This record gives sequence, C-alpha cells and structure tokens, in this order.
Amino acid sequence: MKVVLIRHGESIANFENYWTGWLDVPLTEKGKQQAKEAGKKIHKADIKFDAVFTSVLKRAILTSQLVLEEAEQLWVPVTKTWRLNERHYGALIGKNKDEMATLYGVEQVKKWRRGYWEMPPLESSQTFDRRYQGLGSKDLPKGESLAQTQKRVVPLWQDQIAPLLLAGKNILVAGHGNSLRALVKYLEEVPDNQLDTIVIPNAQPVVYEFNDKLALIKKTML
Amino acid sequence: MKVVLIRHGESIANFENYWTGWLDVPLTEKGKQQAKEAGKKIHKADIKFDAVFTSVLKRAILTSQLVLEEAEQLWVPVTKTWRLNERHYGALIGKNKDEMATLYGVEQVKKWRRGYWEMPPLESSQTFDRRYQGLGSKDLPKGESLAQTQKRVVPLWQDQIAPLLLAGKNILVAGHGNSLRALVKYLEEVPDNQLDTIVIPNAQPVVYEFNDKLALIKKTML
Repeated sequence: MKVVLIRHGESIANFENYWTGWLDVPLTEKGKQQAKEAGKKIHKADIKFDAVFTSVLKRAILTSQLVLEEAEQLWVPVTKTWRLNERHYGALIGKNKDEMATLYGVEQVKKWRRGYWEMPPLESSQTFDRRYQGLGSKDLPKGESLAQTQKRVVPLWQDQIAPLLLAGKNILVAGHGNSLRALVKYLEEVPDNQLDTIVIPNAQPVVYEFNDKLALIKKTML
Repeated sequence: MKVVLIRHGESIANFENYWTGWLDVPLTEKGKQQAKEAGKKIHKADIKFDAVFTSVLKRAILTSQLVLEEAEQLWVPVTKTWRLNERHYGALIGKNKDEMATLYGVEQVKKWRRGYWEMPPLESSQTFDRRYQGLGSKDLPKGESLAQTQKRVVPLWQDQIAPLLLAGKNILVAGHGNSLRALVKYLEEVPDNQLDTIVIPNAQPVVYEFNDKLALIKKTML
C-alpha cells in the first residue's frame, strides 16, 4: 500500500516570494509543467491510485488534476478538504518574505516559517467564502502554528486515509509545503526541534510504502 | 435550485465521426476551448454550484474541470460515476457513422442513434478496466438501448441529485450526448416517439430550474 505525497507546482506566490496560506492563488505556467512532469513520473512508475485527497485551494487541486491526467487516471475519485489547506499564515498573508526579513530580522522570519509552535501575527478581519461554510468560527483560523496545522491534518489521515490503506488501496495526497510537513512529521515521527530537516519541493512525488500494520517501510523520491 | 447539464466539448471521436460509447477518448483543442467558454458563461451568469456529477470518462471529467476552473469554483466536490457514462454502443464502438450508413443504410443508422428501444449489435469480447471493478457482470453492458441507459442514469438523479436540490443546492452534471438525452427525457417527460427532438450540442450549458416540489419551472440555454 502506497501513499504518494505531492506539493503543488510553482504558484504565483512562490514565484513572487510572498506568504499565501489560505489565499487561493493560481499555478504559474512552470507550475503546470511541473505537475505534468510529476504525472508522467507516476505513470512510468506504474502507480495506480484508488483515491485522491487534495485541499480546497486551486494550486493543489490543479496539480492533482494534471497528475491524474498524465497518469491516465482521471476517473479516480478525488476528495477536496480544507484539512489539507496550507498552514494559515495570519497577518503574514500577502507579505513578501524578504521585506519582512528586513523589518523583523532573518531569525524571526525563520521562526515563523520553520518553527513548530511559533504563531504568526494574527489576522482578525478576514472573511471566509462559501467553501468554508461547513466550519464553525472556532475552526476558522486567524493564523496557525505548524502544530495547529498538524492537529487538523492528522484526523484526515486517521479517519479517511488509513482505513483505505488497510484495505490495500493506493492514495495520492496533493497538498502544500506546510500541510505536508505536518503530515510528514507525523508519519516519520520527526522531533519538534528537527523540523527544518523536512523540506518539500514543488511537484516532487514522494512515495511512502506501508506494511499491513501501517508501519512505514520505505520512502522513495520519484 | 438549479441543475446545469453540459455535454462534453468536442472529442476526437466527434471530430472523426465514430461511435465511442465507453471508449475513453480525449477532448480536441477545440473541445477544451468550448469547455472554457461554457465555464465563462456560467461565471457570467453567476451560478454557484454546490456539487458536480460527471462520468468516469475523461472527455466529461475534463469538461467539468475546465468549467469549474473558469467559473472560479474548482473547490466544489465532484462525484465521478459510471451512471453518467455515454450509452454503450456495443459492436458499433470505433465504427465510422458514414461507413456504417453505406453498409447498413441511413435509416438503420438513424434508428441506432435516435431510437429509444433500439439495441446496437452486441460486443461480447470487451474487457473492462479497474474503474469498473465495483460492478457485477450483469451491470457491465455489451451494448445498450437508450432505454437501458436511462435505467442506470435515473437512479443517480433519484438517489443523489434530487436530495441535494431539495436541500436548496445547485448542481452541475457533465455528461454525454445520450446519457444526457436519457436524463432530459426523464426530466421533461418526452414521449418515446419524440426522442429525435432532444439534441444536445457539445459544451452548451442548459440550466434547469425547479421549485421546492422538484417540478421543472424553467429551462434556459446559456
């Protein structure tokens, strides 16, 4: 049983180097190409998916669609869930990372980006569109630490992904830099103080293989 | 409550004028453009979907994806189901419509294409790939009349689409020339002998509005 994790291809925000969080920004042309390349690798590796999970943000959804199209598996069921959304970066959203480093220092920016417990400055004035209407106000973040992101990602694994794996299925998970870091921290049991060892490049498929007890037995980069 | 029906954009088989049925052929470039145009019309008409249903064939799936992308609604949940697949054309699949008219006569071809009870010649040697593995052999067709296609399309309406409409939701249904004709026959109560009045062009969104008893109150072409 395999789970393939893939971060979305390059987005406009990656290219322009600002924080996005739950902002719904598109892929660049390069990002679309990266996603197609990833799909071709998966096709070549002959990985056959039974289910796909992605966020409700278009950069991850489009990445999953391009991967499935290239892998000749467009018919596979896809679940779109806010649980895989990028970490909510609060008041940092829309801010340029270099400019913030000049204002607040490189160390502070590094903490915001790579710490586990570190909170971003909160954003209280945000409105959420109808895709989040099923969520109560206490689940609509004003900003999240990576620990908080992990708290909403892991239930998706426990409730929906793990049962499919135990039934012998292969799963594609298309997410974001930090929602996937949170998942990788959980899967690989990475200590809180070694989080900076988890780096997830755009559109690089990572294959995790599990035994029938859901113990991780192999990790391969395609 | 609205249901928008859309047939896929031009496929390679439409362009080359052969029967496809459950063959999984891609869209042409023109077909992709048609789907994008349809998405723009839906965006302009400000129709907001809550759920999408499509077949397990890529020409309909891609059409739904392009519509949602242009309408800025990629996050809406999509259900892919064999019930919306094109009518299964049996041994006619892959055959050119003009060549068959020369061999069997224009009248016979018209009956195959436009009749309600007419069966195509059956195809017994077909294999079905893993997307159909949940179906028992008696649900895997060797060829279907439109009446048989309707029998598998209508339960989708009754069990999944109607309850959503009654809950006030708007639905997109992306299908095929004959799976949608079967649905339209049911929705508009078209008599068996007037089926040739139902013509569904590629990628033309048709909006059906219903009242709270699910009676059809309005039909609009976008």
